[in-house]
Amino acid sequence: MPRVTEQYIQRRRREILDAARQCFARDGFHATTMDDVIDTAGLSPSVVYRWFRGKDELVLATVHDTLQGILDAIDETAAHEPPPPLSDAIEQVLTATLARVNGDGRDLSALAVHVWTEARRTPEVQHLVADLYTQIRNSLADLVRRHQTAGTLPADIDADTAARPLFALIPGFLVQRLLLGPEDTKSYAAAINSILRA
Amino acid sequence: MPRVTEQYIQRRRREILDAARQCFARDGFHATTMDDVIDTAGLSPSVVYRWFRGKDELVLATVHDTLQGILDAIDETAAHEPPPPLSDAIEQVLTATLARVNGDGRDLSALAVHVWTEARRTPEVQHLVADLYTQIRNSLADLVRRHQTAGTLPADIDADTAARPLFALIPGFLVQRLLLGPEDTKSYAAAINSILRA
Repeated sequence: MPRVTEQYIQRRRREILDAARQCFARDGFHATTMDDVIDTAGLSPSVVYRWFRGKDELVLATVHDTLQGILDAIDETAAHEPPPPLSDAIEQVLTATLARVNGDGRDLSALAVHVWTEARRTPEVQHLVADLYTQIRNSLADLVRRHQTAGTLPADIDADTAARPLFALIPGFLVQRLLLGPEDTKSYAAAINSILRA
Repeated sequence: MPRVTEQYIQRRRREILDAARQCFARDGFHATTMDDVIDTAGLSPSVVYRWFRGKDELVLATVHDTLQGILDAIDETAAHEPPPPLSDAIEQVLTATLARVNGDGRDLSALAVHVWTEARRTPEVQHLVADLYTQIRNSLADLVRRHQTAGTLPADIDADTAARPLFALIPGFLVQRLLLGPEDTKSYAAAINSILRA
């Protein structure tokens, strides 16, 4: 038997999650079956079930993986010194997330709407999304604070409150993309930059 | 027979649309039946069917009515002289729309998510939403232009592009409200004001 390396294990998991994200984005959580994901991943049922015992687990893992990707993108951008413009942080988030999903020709905007619907139905999804959205907002608030320290934003702004409209720019982008057609992240970020103070 | 005045006719229509909005926000478009709306409105089936021949017509009318309310709120605020801060326009929109829905204890955020889902399924809803979203974005672009004329925003900003992140603040508010709990329009608008240039 070949030695199963950590890298190999993670690759399998990634393949299943990418297939799941594709199916969920296309058909929604409700209409997608484990068999759809197994077919799309091109793996045997036993391999997929070894990773995820059922659809509920797969839904949670897909939502977590997608939102964690957004959080990582913000944290990576925000860590730069001096603090990058707020519009850069938003652009990095959108670019990183869309790249991940569009690689398969699928639409993250649709997935986002499915997630919001599912959060209303399933408390576990609601808690997971609320937790990760809060972390994303906190990262944006930290970036605002670093701008205040650097003098590029006024000191009297409440960073936590300011993070709310900044966060809004992410789902607001996805909704417009879904309803009004493809939207370029670069020109969106440039527009943000033109109207924001920092 | 009593004389049927225009005011009376409009009040009936409003009652049906308010009942429909309540049902749609609670159960989604798919799960709501004409009987649900008839029960909620407390009207006879014949009255409701005289106004709307079926659910499809009622869905379109409800979506149109709700989005037209948002558009009216923006246009009314934006018309003031001198041009109001951009955050005021967003606040008026959110306040006007939430007031309309929360009067019945129902949640506009949920309705919005249902509308986005339905737009993916039904071309007529997609076209209607795209048309009204475009009008709302255009109104925001006009407000940006008025600020440029007044000297409160730089002349080199492209107003149509700037309207995209401004528009994003509306669905972005609703998504956060749905996932992270009640959000106060006043503090949200104050936060917008603190990070925007105009």
